[in-house]
Amino acid sequence: MESNTASSDVQRYQVRKLEITDKNKGFMELLQQLTVCDPVTDEEFEKRFQELKTYGDDHVICVIEDVNLSKIVATGSVFIEKKFIRNCGKVGHIEDVVVDSSARGMQLGKKVAGFLADHARLTGCYKVILDCSDDNKAFYEKCGFKQKEIQMVKYFI
Amino acid sequence: MESNTASSDVQRYQVRKLEITDKNKGFMELLQQLTVCDPVTDEEFEKRFQELKTYGDDHVICVIEDVNLSKIVATGSVFIEKKFIRNCGKVGHIEDVVVDSSARGMQLGKKVAGFLADHARLTGCYKVILDCSDDNKAFYEKCGFKQKEIQMVKYFI
Repeated sequence: MESNTASSDVQRYQVRKLEITDKNKGFMELLQQLTVCDPVTDEEFEKRFQELKTYGDDHVICVIEDVNLSKIVATGSVFIEKKFIRNCGKVGHIEDVVVDSSARGMQLGKKVAGFLADHARLTGCYKVILDCSDDNKAFYEKCGFKQKEIQMVKYFI
Repeated sequence: MESNTASSDVQRYQVRKLEITDKNKGFMELLQQLTVCDPVTDEEFEKRFQELKTYGDDHVICVIEDVNLSKIVATGSVFIEKKFIRNCGKVGHIEDVVVDSSARGMQLGKKVAGFLADHARLTGCYKVILDCSDDNKAFYEKCGFKQKEIQMVKYFI
């Protein structure tokens, strides 16, 4: 029974890159569970989507779709920073990871973090980093991350 | 006398964007004071420089040159991340800030951080962030930053 459940979960929760039609599948509403995220028009969404597309593999947004509901239930992004240090090395930056409140406890967050970290590794990054609250530290430790530095911020608005 | 000194310092320490000829002015040796930074060939340097140039205002490296010595004595970079949250907002990420050990105590680090934060603000970012050690927290507080989250890292090498 367990393996059947796992297999049906794999079919139900599809991990892939963001598509332009995901705006109609609750992508922006999902981001609203993360932080301030006002609704945007279709034009604004498409403009940003196309801008990000020009970065190719240097900016990837992962989503998990619940195909039974045609709903995006988890997401996260990674962008690849090119440096001069570490022999002109590259670093992956993970941002904006969130799992829908109705879909927690199914390891979807871990799948998103894994997808993004794998992408950074496969594009040649020597490390992948992210900033999170103390509350999320244990989650990322389960994903293979370790705490290193502190994050400082300056707001303009 | 003080204003004369300040004025001559402004002439001596020129704040500007990285130029391709800065490799011959000790730019890579300066980065070695920050972290692991093996020497790169002129071809590798030029390739990375041109790659970064294609990002335009979305990736800027600030340097301070001591024009008396034709030597780069401080640097830092910022890249602009485009998001869907915050009304398709943008965030500046500051990285790789370092001041030459022989040029400390002259507020050059503050000038670099200010240049990078101003760039983020002027390109429309709603905030600018960076990761640093606990030891550097007080410095960035003087630059107007506040501690917010923690940084997590996963190394591939």
